[in-house]
Amino acid sequence: MIDPAHPRFPVPDLADLPDDIRARIAAVQDKAGFIPNVFLVMARRPEEFRAFFAYHDALMDKDSGLSKGEREMIVVATSALNQCLYCVVAHGAIVRIREKNPLLADQLASNYRKSGITPRQRAMLDFAVKVSRKAHTVEEQDFDTLHGHGFSDEDIWDMGAVAALFGLSNRMANLTGMQPNEEFYGMGRG
Amino acid sequence: MIDPAHPRFPVPDLADLPDDIRARIAAVQDKAGFIPNVFLVMARRPEEFRAFFAYHDALMDKDSGLSKGEREMIVVATSALNQCLYCVVAHGAIVRIREKNPLLADQLASNYRKSGITPRQRAMLDFAVKVSRKAHTVEEQDFDTLHGHGFSDEDIWDMGAVAALFGLSNRMANLTGMQPNEEFYGMGRG
Amino acid sequence: MIDPAHPRFPVPDLADLPDDIRARIAAVQDKAGFIPNVFLVMARRPEEFRAFFAYHDALMDKDSGLSKGEREMIVVATSALNQCLYCVVAHGAIVRIREKNPLLADQLASNYRKSGITPRQRAMLDFAVKVSRKAHTVEEQDFDTLHGHGFSDEDIWDMGAVAALFGLSNRMANLTGMQPNEEFYGMGRG
Amino acid sequence: MIDPAHPRFPVPDLADLPDDIRARIAAVQDKAGFIPNVFLVMARRPEEFRAFFAYHDALMDKDSGLSKGEREMIVVATSALNQCLYCVVAHGAIVRIREKNPLLADQLASNYRKSGITPRQRAMLDFAVKVSRKAHTVEEQDFDTLHGHGFSDEDIWDMGAVAALFGLSNRMANLTGMQPNEEFYGMGRG
Amino acid sequence: MIDPAHPRFPVPDLADLPDDIRARIAAVQDKAGFIPNVFLVMARRPEEFRAFFAYHDALMDKDSGLSKGEREMIVVATSALNQCLYCVVAHGAIVRIREKNPLLADQLASNYRKSGITPRQRAMLDFAVKVSRKAHTVEEQDFDTLHGHGFSDEDIWDMGAVAALFGLSNRMANLTGMQPNEEFYGMGRG
Amino acid sequence: MIDPAHPRFPVPDLADLPDDIRARIAAVQDKAGFIPNVFLVMARRPEEFRAFFAYHDALMDKDSGLSKGEREMIVVATSALNQCLYCVVAHGAIVRIREKNPLLADQLASNYRKSGITPRQRAMLDFAVKVSRKAHTVEEQDFDTLHGHGFSDEDIWDMGAVAALFGLSNRMANLTGMQPNEEFYGMGRG
Repeated sequence: MIDPAHPRFPVPDLADLPDDIRARIAAVQDKAGFIPNVFLVMARRPEEFRAFFAYHDALMDKDSGLSKGEREMIVVATSALNQCLYCVVAHGAIVRIREKNPLLADQLASNYRKSGITPRQRAMLDFAVKVSRKAHTVEEQDFDTLHGHGFSDEDIWDMGAVAALFGLSNRMANLTGMQPNEEFYGMGRG
Repeated sequence: MIDPAHPRFPVPDLADLPDDIRARIAAVQDKAGFIPNVFLVMARRPEEFRAFFAYHDALMDKDSGLSKGEREMIVVATSALNQCLYCVVAHGAIVRIREKNPLLADQLASNYRKSGITPRQRAMLDFAVKVSRKAHTVEEQDFDTLHGHGFSDEDIWDMGAVAALFGLSNRMANLTGMQPNEEFYGMGRG
Repeated sequence: MIDPAHPRFPVPDLADLPDDIRARIAAVQDKAGFIPNVFLVMARRPEEFRAFFAYHDALMDKDSGLSKGEREMIVVATSALNQCLYCVVAHGAIVRIREKNPLLADQLASNYRKSGITPRQRAMLDFAVKVSRKAHTVEEQDFDTLHGHGFSDEDIWDMGAVAALFGLSNRMANLTGMQPNEEFYGMGRG
Repeated sequence: MIDPAHPRFPVPDLADLPDDIRARIAAVQDKAGFIPNVFLVMARRPEEFRAFFAYHDALMDKDSGLSKGEREMIVVATSALNQCLYCVVAHGAIVRIREKNPLLADQLASNYRKSGITPRQRAMLDFAVKVSRKAHTVEEQDFDTLHGHGFSDEDIWDMGAVAALFGLSNRMANLTGMQPNEEFYGMGRG
Repeated sequence: MIDPAHPRFPVPDLADLPDDIRARIAAVQDKAGFIPNVFLVMARRPEEFRAFFAYHDALMDKDSGLSKGEREMIVVATSALNQCLYCVVAHGAIVRIREKNPLLADQLASNYRKSGITPRQRAMLDFAVKVSRKAHTVEEQDFDTLHGHGFSDEDIWDMGAVAALFGLSNRMANLTGMQPNEEFYGMGRG
Repeated sequence: MIDPAHPRFPVPDLADLPDDIRARIAAVQDKAGFIPNVFLVMARRPEEFRAFFAYHDALMDKDSGLSKGEREMIVVATSALNQCLYCVVAHGAIVRIREKNPLLADQLASNYRKSGITPRQRAMLDFAVKVSRKAHTVEEQDFDTLHGHGFSDEDIWDMGAVAALFGLSNRMANLTGMQPNEEFYGMGRG
């Protein structure tokens, strides 16, 4: 639905944005070479922008028992089930780069049960998908299973929180018709 | 799962919290007369706490084409379908108070189609539920329907964003076994 | 949909009802202090009224391995999943009174897995929900599980029959737009 | 699960039954030439037996804007979706006989949308299936659609009530492992 | 939808068909005494006809660890869940004949869990239904379960392939409104 | 599950295959530069191999009101919903090449409603997905809608048949753990 010329929710002019948001956008542009559309779409609501990316950074940038690549794997697997084009393509690119694996993202998006991941990662994704699709059925035995794979309670919070935050992101992307930048499709394919 | 004595994720000691978080908690305690458990459960992760409540405030406290009571109605209707005990009970109390209606929250939680709301509010809840349950099917005609009820694009963003944020909250509450404070159950029942 | 002034199916004049039905209604009014709407809505079909309440009494008033409060817990948990406003609110009141617990009904209606019930009651509700939602998958091992919690075959029949009867009731209430009396919302909240 | 030799819930000795129940069973045996298993399985709970068959007779034997054959069509179509072997086979036999059509029952059980029924009957079955599967979504416009096919509000109550009662019956049959008598399979096949 | 006079997709004139197809149809007519409608509907696309029946013969006529009757049981159970009238009725007739059991097909079509099959056959149908309904969740442990019932990997391929081929057939039958010949309804009922 | 070294179903030695199958494989290898795994996995059952590829060629290689690229779009959109890794990746490559569009396949696999297709193609995919997911609900009005977009009955058969055939293929790929060749992931990405 959204496209650069006729987006559903107009993208603000960068010059009109608050300094902190413009700075954040400039930083990501420097690093990536382009501005991922999620920054532009969210920027028209500065307070929501700040909260969203603060939440993102708190979960995705910190040290955790889950590697950064593993957290991105959760994003791709759950976003695919939520049929979120933006997150599958943008975070698929990040999975490819972080895991140095040009195939894994497409595998996770199609059917994570058939992807080349470890049993520990499989347990992680099973749980993240459960939180994403039917969190009301999470029980103590889910924690037991994950402890059996060496995950701590903090790791389990991370799995669930990543699934929950990107569930929000998936809904906002589908609501706004957010399109992935073309650059993402080919990144990390080697 | 979680209870004051044996919570799944231990609640931090208030004295150990960063000043801003302790201040936020003190403020809500002053206003409500008790500390809603969501503040205690989330406080053990200060950065996520800050992001979550910043997002909450950005959506729920501002002026909008949706009244504050209507935004809470979205929270109750979508949280009920997500089977989130905490949000249904806590935000049910807020709906009763904001709408000065002791019955509405239970109606929305059971079956919002049978509640005493206006056709405009019904269209709002139909859309919020769609974003919550199958956002991937949102289409231009959903916007047309809502425009026909007098909603603006900004109002529609608000509907979807509230549904999305509380979808996150529902998942965190179910993950952590968050229990509503007893006070919420009876508030606003007249 | 239904309201006292403009119900979908007109409520009969009490004076026009057969004596036995009028007597039954008078008895419940004496006891409760008001006439629950289910009696008024069903009374326009005296034969169905008699059969429905005979079935109700046969299951809900007798001695059983399930306490009367436990049988009402089944009603609330299954009716909530069927999104039946009348049964959730009316039988929620009864759960609060019978169990002397002002919180339990709202917990069961939101997510019975997070309510403060015993493991034996949890097994009972899991089975009742299974009968309500996918009875075609009931198998011998379900009986084994329940026997392991000390339930007899008669208790299991009771669980299933309560879920089945209120499945009927849920459908009739949703068909007729039956509204709970206002009195039910606040009863037993202490 | 249930079979004549080892039923899940033992069938009572006819000699031990209350007179009215034994008389009812004798009457159906005289008419059908055999005792349908539903009478035997339900007879071990005389009060539930009486209520169930009173409800059945109130809906299925009276005059209605729906012919008796049409009411049986509702039973077959909804019972098939509930995967209830007993009701599909036993009421399939009745459909064949009442409609003098040896093919219709199997068509309704497989896919009522492909059966040789009238548009009016199709609307009736669409509504009955809606009550059976998702009664919480019944709305005023469903009544409008049915009125457009010439159905009265009383007819609509009948549709919903038949779907609701046999929803109960389907659950009891699946709970008890009730098997259709062999005679039903071939009846009315011409 | 389709009937001999006004089919959705016109049935070709037998005289216009390629020789091999006309011969195949003549052979089945000789054997069955009538031409099953699937041959007529598919014949208007000779290449698809040849491929479909070649696939059918490769799976259904060969020697296998699954008897021919067992393979037909898979067809009936999976086609019923796909709500395919043609396949339930036509292959139901074949089940009755091959298994010399006038009741089994209706049992499998209504609820295979309640039919009089062996535990080994139950495991076979559970797997075939899994392939039919959610093949993406097939895992190594499904193979282990089936090996435990004495099935080989080749048998498991056969189960899955029969479910997959008739999933195709179910979709074509529902697309074309294919009606079973009247003869099938009564065959093998003894 | 399947990998070149330890496939679930052993891949036959090319030298042992019948001549026609070896020739078909040689031809595809000449054209593509590698042997797509579906040829190797299916080759261990020569008769099924021949039937499957005959069906494939009959639908995918002929002239049709749907372009070859459009038929591949149906494959990708329906295979993604069936969570079939092999078909999404292999036919995604073909979509990219046939449509000369490096982005379209990933869009169709994530959420075809958000992809850059024409309204006519959208109607085509809506119908193909309907056949794939709930063919039992296909009705005359679906044909009317498609005729309104200029599609003929033959085109509609093609849509349904492609969805049905690849539904079979999706199930076989998930059953056998078929992995896409690495070459497919990057093809046509420009």
